Amino acid sequence: MSIPNAKIVDCTIRDGGLVNNWDFSVEFVQDMYRALSLAGVEYMEIGYKNSPKLLKGADAGPWRFLDEGFLREVISKKSDTKLSALVDIGRVDENDILPREQSALDLIRVACYIQDVDKAVDLINKFHRMGYETTINIMALSHVMENDLVEAFEEIKKSPVDVVYVVDSYGNFDHKDTNYLVSKFQSMLPEKTLGIHAHNNMQLAFSNTLLAHEKGVSFLDSSVYGMGRAAGNCNTELLVGYLKNPRYELRPVLEFIEKHMLATREKWEWGYIIPYMVTGLLNEHPRVAMAARASADKDKFAEFYDKLTSPEVNPAQSIE
Amino acid sequence: MSIPNAKIVDCTIRDGGLVNNWDFSVEFVQDMYRALSLAGVEYMEIGYKNSPKLLKGADAGPWRFLDEGFLREVISKKSDTKLSALVDIGRVDENDILPREQSALDLIRVACYIQDVDKAVDLINKFHRMGYETTINIMALSHVMENDLVEAFEEIKKSPVDVVYVVDSYGNFDHKDTNYLVSKFQSMLPEKTLGIHAHNNMQLAFSNTLLAHEKGVSFLDSSVYGMGRAAGNCNTELLVGYLKNPRYELRPVLEFIEKHMLATREKWEWGYIIPYMVTGLLNEHPRVAMAARASADKDKFAEFYDKLTSPEVNPAQSIE
Repeated sequence: MSIPNAKIVDCTIRDGGLVNNWDFSVEFVQDMYRALSLAGVEYMEIGYKNSPKLLKGADAGPWRFLDEGFLREVISKKSDTKLSALVDIGRVDENDILPREQSALDLIRVACYIQDVDKAVDLINKFHRMGYETTINIMALSHVMENDLVEAFEEIKKSPVDVVYVVDSYGNFDHKDTNYLVSKFQSMLPEKTLGIHAHNNMQLAFSNTLLAHEKGVSFLDSSVYGMGRAAGNCNTELLVGYLKNPRYELRPVLEFIEKHMLATREKWEWGYIIPYMVTGLLNEHPRVAMAARASADKDKFAEFYDKLTSPEVNPAQSIE
Repeated sequence: MSIPNAKIVDCTIRDGGLVNNWDFSVEFVQDMYRALSLAGVEYMEIGYKNSPKLLKGADAGPWRFLDEGFLREVISKKSDTKLSALVDIGRVDENDILPREQSALDLIRVACYIQDVDKAVDLINKFHRMGYETTINIMALSHVMENDLVEAFEEIKKSPVDVVYVVDSYGNFDHKDTNYLVSKFQSMLPEKTLGIHAHNNMQLAFSNTLLAHEKGVSFLDSSVYGMGRAAGNCNTELLVGYLKNPRYELRPVLEFIEKHMLATREKWEWGYIIPYMVTGLLNEHPRVAMAARASADKDKFAEFYDKLTSPEVNPAQSIE
């Protein structure tokens, strides 16, 4: 099988915004768009297209509630690098979305849990009719039973969605899990393009992304310097540096890291940090680790591990 | 094929010593031995058994020039965790080595470049006769031509060496390289147990180690919190947490990280750092990146990349 060319979808502003509450300056975002354009990255996810009316936290800045007027000011001249936004079920007001020809956005991605695939497909139908490229990203697949997944595939199969994502929200997948799910998606959705969104809790995000790509997955999510929630994502600079495609240039990404990411990492934390490794290993949502990292006990790793593995402390471990 | 049980060889003191010039306190090393013993780790490499007469830098502390008397003071009571030391060709005085029954050491590993395999085999013959378990670690395999490797295998095949290591000194291997070399070693050395020593320049050390293990490689090198030269090694805590073997316990390793490694990492640097990523990607020795990190230009990543990729700046790139 010949491997389709990868399309890198850089999620730094969107997934990284979960780290710093979208505290990115306009200059940061403009420099990033320029760097990704020069690097040959195909898509930049520039934030969430959620509605401030439907979600608290409207103080989080413009990248969480993208506005078309603002977006045109920030990215006044588009390059080959397309722009993407993510929407969450129940947090997007469809009336906020312009038809694609009037929008700076090219791609709208819909994130949902397995029980909301019907709602996601409904949104995708609408976005598709408005001319957008679309993806569906079913989150937390490591907590999904296969009969539910098979049922969801039936909905997705009938939808016009362009790309279906394998999402390892908890950073729990190893190569066998990645292999298994990609094969499953490929056999159940033979007509769909696939994507992968990996988290780096066990330092496997880059490896899982490469292995998925070699099996034919073409949309590869990443973020610069790995910036993303908790342990972060597959690193854009690793993909750009590693993948054999003459369009990719590593240097602009390195320049951006040097100019912006080192200082950002000084101010905010993400990456391979022990509590995130532990939640990845235990296949748990990172929120408990994020809470620990925000507390005075942030470095009490053994205690944290006890808490997550002792039934008397963590009720989730003792439910039958 | 059933996969042989892994044997974890923790190299923190030895390979990590290359980071901090072996500035480990006796308490640090004792706590580590206790932690690895409780964690079920099979081997702890406690340093180099080089001779201060044959190597400058005798100020580097006892872990670079292990002395049996000192070792017995440090590890007064041995657990199930065996002790290992590494020797370099030309830096070891064979007269320094006691017979195994008088030594605290169980395993002596011989590191060499491909052109010194004959000298390594000669040493191994001697150590073997003295009762030690032995390994041969051919370094920098990503710079070795296969005809030379095949020739080396002929020497190794005839030797009594217990374990032959696949060593990715430059952190350049991906899963295809790992797969290729492990298969090659297995077909050429069917009687030998194999080991892997990976570096983490591209965040692939853990993944490569797992993939090698699944192909039947059983000696897995790692270090706690990844501490090792430049980008460091596969993380011991990831192996202990991930591998399915009831003897392994993650908690003691987490406790050790909490007590010692966070402060050590504050003082010394290793891990995923851009210049190391670049040398890994370009399949170069990390020394040029280590020099850059020790200079005032440590964070000039784009300039560093230019230096390594421009023939007019890096003569190695223009030699034909």
